[in-house]
Amino acid sequence: MNEIIDSLYHRKSVRVYEDRQIPEEMKNLILEAAMQAPSAGCQQLYTILDITDQKLKEMLAESCDHQSFIANAKMVLVFCADCKKWYDAYLEAGCEPRKPGVGDLMLAITDTAIAAQNAVVAAESLGIGSCYIGDIMENCEEQRRLLHLPEYVFPAVMLVFGWPTEQQRMRKKPERCERKYIVHENTYRSIVGEELREMFAYQCKNSTYEEWCSAFCNRKYNSDFSKEMSRSVSEYLKQY
Amino acid sequence: MNEIIDSLYHRKSVRVYEDRQIPEEMKNLILEAAMQAPSAGCQQLYTILDITDQKLKEMLAESCDHQSFIANAKMVLVFCADCKKWYDAYLEAGCEPRKPGVGDLMLAITDTAIAAQNAVVAAESLGIGSCYIGDIMENCEEQRRLLHLPEYVFPAVMLVFGWPTEQQRMRKKPERCERKYIVHENTYRSIVGEELREMFAYQCKNSTYEEWCSAFCNRKYNSDFSKEMSRSVSEYLKQY
Repeated sequence: MNEIIDSLYHRKSVRVYEDRQIPEEMKNLILEAAMQAPSAGCQQLYTILDITDQKLKEMLAESCDHQSFIANAKMVLVFCADCKKWYDAYLEAGCEPRKPGVGDLMLAITDTAIAAQNAVVAAESLGIGSCYIGDIMENCEEQRRLLHLPEYVFPAVMLVFGWPTEQQRMRKKPERCERKYIVHENTYRSIVGEELREMFAYQCKNSTYEEWCSAFCNRKYNSDFSKEMSRSVSEYLKQY
Repeated sequence: MNEIIDSLYHRKSVRVYEDRQIPEEMKNLILEAAMQAPSAGCQQLYTILDITDQKLKEMLAESCDHQSFIANAKMVLVFCADCKKWYDAYLEAGCEPRKPGVGDLMLAITDTAIAAQNAVVAAESLGIGSCYIGDIMENCEEQRRLLHLPEYVFPAVMLVFGWPTEQQRMRKKPERCERKYIVHENTYRSIVGEELREMFAYQCKNSTYEEWCSAFCNRKYNSDFSKEMSRSVSEYLKQY
């Protein structure tokens, strides 16, 4: 163990912030950390939107499943998987690039999430809390309009940042699944039946497996926002 | 600046390793760092394959665009975006889950890349080098066969690890693009013409923009492996 690993282990999402700005210098350190992340062929297949306009924050809070805390965040970054900028660069050079495909998109999305996580780790090291907002993938028509997203630009990840309140600092980090269920040796193995129940036993301390799992399924998976996410992503995918 | 940010800034890919094992204890610290990463609804939408079989490493080195250094890595992890395990969990509980959609896949891919980057940062803090292999998304038929990947499991990211050789430690980290081109305020803006050339000027110190960009396009984008990536990803997408 060391200071860095300790920081990775203790980082948890922060959704309530003190009313205190993030100094410009810290913001720049965080953005630079994102840009220094590993990147496929060093292509930096992302564009980061720094949302400074309060009205826009409020509209994003609405369009991202009505989560009002987003509007209170002191720093809001939208990490876009960007297959447009290289395509434009190739055209400018007189090349004959093929249209971006779904492989390019996936490579850009992983590049983007990797950069975003560096921003999270950098922020944490400065005492600044963060929270990922997956809902940025929903409502593509609205996000495109709000963020002026052209073809081949996909908002993969939103991150909101701020100084954690005392209550947030004290909040228990949610427990993770045991490693033996997450890490498989050499090949994938399906986990079924009794083992599946054991895997999720840590979630079912006050309920049966059926009760916990059904409630979770209704809240997270068979939910409207989750269905909307797949509809919206399907729309983005039509470009590639 | 602090030790953590300094580590993020200096990390670079390592492709040549000393012939020295990674102790089990360090491997576990790295895997735990991945599992402690932020995760959508704390669902940990990934499964990590720990490739310990040397023959399998060699086959992956082949199936991932013939990169023999992969077979020499002391630790090889395939991070799979896993939409199957929760689907199975819901079925076990007697729920009626919908089939996983492309939104679920994208959320799982970002979850997966975020976890992978925590592994990279943890390894770096221990002096262990790493390299992302995006080519794991290619050749889906072969990867499915090698890794026993069932439906709804997508190998989003491969990471290889090892102790860097002296030469690798001394290697210059590739330069990044200037921040003003990567970070846009509030809305996306297309970069075209002269500004596009300025953006990539740091790449064109010994060549014209056209020369550099055409060579890069041929090597990276209009290349066979890049086309294969989109073909392969299209195959995976058919499930969702």
